[in-house]
Amino acid sequence: MEEVAIIGIGCTPVGEPWHKSLRNMAVESTWAAMEDAAIDQVDALIVGNMSSGNFNDQESLGSLIADYAGLGNISAFKVEGACGSGGAAFNAGVMAVASGMHDTVCVTGVEKMTDVVGDNATKILANAADREYESIHGISFVGLNAMIMRRYMYDYNVKKEDLCAFPVNSHKNAVHNKYAMFRQEIKMDAVLNSPMVADPMTLMECAPICDGAASAIITTKERAREYTDTPVIVKGSSLKVDTIGVHDRKTVTSMKATVTAANDAYKQSGLSPSDIQTVELHDAFSIMGAIGLEDLGFAERGKGARFAAEGQIGIGGKLPCCTFGGLKARGHPVGATGLYQIIELSKNLRGEGVVDAECGLAQNIGGTGSTVSVTILGRG
Amino acid sequence: MEEVAIIGIGCTPVGEPWHKSLRNMAVESTWAAMEDAAIDQVDALIVGNMSSGNFNDQESLGSLIADYAGLGNISAFKVEGACGSGGAAFNAGVMAVASGMHDTVCVTGVEKMTDVVGDNATKILANAADREYESIHGISFVGLNAMIMRRYMYDYNVKKEDLCAFPVNSHKNAVHNKYAMFRQEIKMDAVLNSPMVADPMTLMECAPICDGAASAIITTKERAREYTDTPVIVKGSSLKVDTIGVHDRKTVTSMKATVTAANDAYKQSGLSPSDIQTVELHDAFSIMGAIGLEDLGFAERGKGARFAAEGQIGIGGKLPCCTFGGLKARGHPVGATGLYQIIELSKNLRGEGVVDAECGLAQNIGGTGSTVSVTILGRG
Repeated sequence: MEEVAIIGIGCTPVGEPWHKSLRNMAVESTWAAMEDAAIDQVDALIVGNMSSGNFNDQESLGSLIADYAGLGNISAFKVEGACGSGGAAFNAGVMAVASGMHDTVCVTGVEKMTDVVGDNATKILANAADREYESIHGISFVGLNAMIMRRYMYDYNVKKEDLCAFPVNSHKNAVHNKYAMFRQEIKMDAVLNSPMVADPMTLMECAPICDGAASAIITTKERAREYTDTPVIVKGSSLKVDTIGVHDRKTVTSMKATVTAANDAYKQSGLSPSDIQTVELHDAFSIMGAIGLEDLGFAERGKGARFAAEGQIGIGGKLPCCTFGGLKARGHPVGATGLYQIIELSKNLRGEGVVDAECGLAQNIGGTGSTVSVTILGRG
Repeated sequence: MEEVAIIGIGCTPVGEPWHKSLRNMAVESTWAAMEDAAIDQVDALIVGNMSSGNFNDQESLGSLIADYAGLGNISAFKVEGACGSGGAAFNAGVMAVASGMHDTVCVTGVEKMTDVVGDNATKILANAADREYESIHGISFVGLNAMIMRRYMYDYNVKKEDLCAFPVNSHKNAVHNKYAMFRQEIKMDAVLNSPMVADPMTLMECAPICDGAASAIITTKERAREYTDTPVIVKGSSLKVDTIGVHDRKTVTSMKATVTAANDAYKQSGLSPSDIQTVELHDAFSIMGAIGLEDLGFAERGKGARFAAEGQIGIGGKLPCCTFGGLKARGHPVGATGLYQIIELSKNLRGEGVVDAECGLAQNIGGTGSTVSVTILGRG
């Protein structure tokens, strides 16, 4: 397969910008990435977005964003894979370039979640679960994850204190990220004492509902050097699915979609977990951080939380994770998250980040592990 | 670019099957296409769907359908391009195979529109228009198309009688299609005298709100012969966008997205309009049939309706169109329509259809021409 490289990145600050609409944010990040790549046109736009139909009464995101970004009659469509839409869109972008159909592709992830009232965002997010067997009964994503957390704590005799290491780490790393939503450190006590959302999960273990957009410009590795001295090479890009319903799995404390996507991406890249120097985990909930580390091959089964609690995921640790604040502190505008991860990894690889790395990995989850993309990036 | 071929096709009957859910229909067509290709596994599933979030409170269609079709931990995601989602998904499928990322891909288009109450379907469909400048003011798709129809009739001095040739032709062709929603012929008087929906457009000029799913299995041209003696070759596949708002265009009686996608597909295939022997037009409204014929290069400007009224689009005519009933009579389950067109064209090329053709074209429109895909297929 033709090798692909990232030549431009950009994003909006994550937050609740009531003065910006969905299209405003998508155009802002698309233009930022194009400016970073020093180009004024792309051949195609692929949009990662989960639920603009429900959140914003707006479909046709491909044409909408291409139109408002002034890109004219290019090729454009939206890719959906729930909260993993951004990673799925990036995977589609890699195919678009590798196939030879398009030379230069912009992948823009965007979600505008805060324009709906009250609990509606939680209801809309539950559409990522199985409507006929899960969400129709009133279960929310935090509820599903809380059950997984309880099982994990029981199976592996893990304390909540160890899982708190994930939000503590993400908040610490967000302080220096001007695009992050929560730029303040938090202590373990704050996590433990925050309001209960779904027992045993407390508020400070959960990523926020927020708005954001992030974009990456990609082309072939061969052409990349014409655009930049610091291309970031896509060494592996894989997307895998699992049963949509959690009840249909043999285990809930491991996600087969992560394991299979990681194996595929490692195979594509010829790399193994020991080659990876930094990881953007999908830490939408603290428990997802622990399971992610294990499924990706960085920690033994049941030891992911311990790995984090020992300080190994901090900047300066053995495997810096969520170096720009992760989903918990940078924020989790669902369809955009996969792209935020990719541009943050790219910054680290380009020497513009907070970690000096040659090679990194991003994991983006949709649903309760029903769609997972794993992307391995390396220095050009 | 690596050449791609269709090795299996399948679909459900179009209609209002209240005993089948979204997933039932998608699995039914996916399995039908896999059975037709005589395969029991694919490497990836790409789902074309417009608004399952609003219609069915269900996102994550990639994992949902892969799961319920028993496909396991494959790669899967959804593609959205409004009513052009099916054609856009097919275009993404071509990239998936041509890139070498996946050997065998199933592209399934599905839409379950009739499970919502009253006028809600019209409201949901309006999300394909520009929310901030069009649909928020109450304009519906039939309203937008009626304005285009009026302008077209004024500019080119065209009578409504001529435009009626499109629904009359589609209904005639649906009689022999067991998957069609309306299998009865209609006369021009019935179209003219049907209830006014949006002046000057009457009910029998408009495609119905309905449910359906259609699937195509694709692989490389090289591998296709291992699976079938009658592969259908993808000679051209192009997707282009235009301004989402109709008011932002220089003209409304031609769709630039169709023109640019057609030019691109003709260039890819090395073919011209005179080589095309049958066309699946996006006749969601009679006016779209006329403008489609012109934009695709089959009729002169302002002469598309006349071309149809002279009987040239009938089976046995110069250019048989909508040979299985088109959107008007086979039905228009929006995200599935692009795939219905592709499998109907494939039937004609495989000698299992109603027209003996070596080469055909399908045009799938999303929004009011804001997303258009053009696919050119040929005999293997």
